[in-house]
Amino acid sequence: MENIPTLEHIRAAHERIRPFIHRTPVMSSELINAQAGCSIYFKCENFQKTGAFKIRGAHNAVLSLPATKISKGVGTHSSGNHAQALAKVAANVGCKAHIVMPESSPEVKINAVKDYGAEIYFCASTQQAREETLRSVLRDTGVTLIHPYDDYNIIAGQATVAVELIEEVPDLNILMVPVGGGGLLSGTCLAAAYLLPEAIVIAGEPEGADDAFRSLQMGMIHPSIEPNTIADGLLTSLSEKTFGIIQNHVHEIITVSDMEIIRAMRLVWERMKILIEPSAAVPLAAVLKRPGEFSGKRIGLILSGGNVDLGKFKFD
Amino acid sequence: MENIPTLEHIRAAHERIRPFIHRTPVMSSELINAQAGCSIYFKCENFQKTGAFKIRGAHNAVLSLPATKISKGVGTHSSGNHAQALAKVAANVGCKAHIVMPESSPEVKINAVKDYGAEIYFCASTQQAREETLRSVLRDTGVTLIHPYDDYNIIAGQATVAVELIEEVPDLNILMVPVGGGGLLSGTCLAAAYLLPEAIVIAGEPEGADDAFRSLQMGMIHPSIEPNTIADGLLTSLSEKTFGIIQNHVHEIITVSDMEIIRAMRLVWERMKILIEPSAAVPLAAVLKRPGEFSGKRIGLILSGGNVDLGKFKFD
Repeated sequence: MENIPTLEHIRAAHERIRPFIHRTPVMSSELINAQAGCSIYFKCENFQKTGAFKIRGAHNAVLSLPATKISKGVGTHSSGNHAQALAKVAANVGCKAHIVMPESSPEVKINAVKDYGAEIYFCASTQQAREETLRSVLRDTGVTLIHPYDDYNIIAGQATVAVELIEEVPDLNILMVPVGGGGLLSGTCLAAAYLLPEAIVIAGEPEGADDAFRSLQMGMIHPSIEPNTIADGLLTSLSEKTFGIIQNHVHEIITVSDMEIIRAMRLVWERMKILIEPSAAVPLAAVLKRPGEFSGKRIGLILSGGNVDLGKFKFD
Repeated sequence: MENIPTLEHIRAAHERIRPFIHRTPVMSSELINAQAGCSIYFKCENFQKTGAFKIRGAHNAVLSLPATKISKGVGTHSSGNHAQALAKVAANVGCKAHIVMPESSPEVKINAVKDYGAEIYFCASTQQAREETLRSVLRDTGVTLIHPYDDYNIIAGQATVAVELIEEVPDLNILMVPVGGGGLLSGTCLAAAYLLPEAIVIAGEPEGADDAFRSLQMGMIHPSIEPNTIADGLLTSLSEKTFGIIQNHVHEIITVSDMEIIRAMRLVWERMKILIEPSAAVPLAAVLKRPGEFSGKRIGLILSGGNVDLGKFKFD
């Protein structure tokens, strides 16, 4: 797709991926609502296949390729949820996924990618090593690159999360999502603009990887140099395509500290009895950081994923 | 109620408590099914109000009292989920709950009971201190004792979990639940006997608190002397009323080690992205312990609760 997805593109993406995804539930918590002073409708993509929304965009991007390209295979670099998603999509459509992963990736994620039958290429942890290794893989194998977010088919796929949320709770005032590379945020911006134009879209971003906040302020892309946050799904920086959409549509980006992220995550675990990853807790952390500001509002909040390395985890 | 609850009693209990409880969802995991070699339907009482099924029996027991008794208040001793449940029920029906709690109770549970407005009486951690303190509270206040499980109204309330599960998945071969004092197990036995007599009921029990296993073998109640297990909801021993029902109906009790419980709990957290407490993982641990034995079966498994002290928790 060469242009910003229209509502028809997003609807077509939804039809295309529907057989391969869960329609995830929307949950609420009286206790969290009382604490936050507003009504929050959590769209639970932590229950999505592979544990995150990424499977939506990846499916749409791969299924939008011509059959001859699909059969040759697909490739990407990722240490996280996009790697798992693309490996699973390739397994579903019967082609080979070639995934460049930093040696430092958590073993649980490496194993998940392996289990889906993908070919893994290890490299050093730097952005440069990842990109160089991927370039040589693409050259050697002739497979098609599936970028995690700088791709309008990916964005159209991620937009289907907000489409389902708006279908289920039609009178929202605010949509809130985390922002890393901006695939989910730009998709959400489009879905809201087309289906619920009276609502505003707000993103939460970790202070330690606040490129979207800074880019929006400066009016141009300012990538994070050495991002550092517990929200390991949000280390990436905005791209041309996601920044373009976000700049036109997002109302505000609220940054939060790792402490605020952990506190919000724990609240969801304890009160809702569901597992979310740190990245997914970022928008709730933003709501809790601004007491009063969201008073009485109806907020649709996307819980982006639930892939936590429990072995590493300790709250106190 | 003086006699073992009939199906009509259980149906009446269900109507009585319906306005105060969630109808909890039934969930499945392809990955866990593949690993276990059978189809498991998890009834998610971890999503129940107060985080455990106990609210069902407590509501039924209190609402079955005459209005004059309700207005005088209710009392019990408990360090855990029954304390929270009774405090919440009392708040719902507008009477006072008097709860004897051991000083060693987790602060998070003490606070939850306090938040519901209950009066707390602290005592030493021994069974004797708990019972003596409760006796003096009952004598001084004139409130009605609500026993956590040795009460047919409690048992009828807990039976409604299995009623809902059987309504939702009608062709189960096996129902599986954890056993502590036996309220949930005896209620499940009755619901299965009335509504799905071709199914068998199997309980999971921690090796460190295996009084139900031993009592069944010996044909008489053998309480645990110094129970010790990570499954803190299953430290109690069977009572006259629960033992009577269980002895007549249960097919088998399978004991599992704390290691097996932790492994099963982690599997549910990681694969299903939901929080369950150690006690709730006991039946799954029993399934995984006997590979092949449940092959191809359709198992309805009750996840009894999700109240975990995250501050204390570490998997590796």
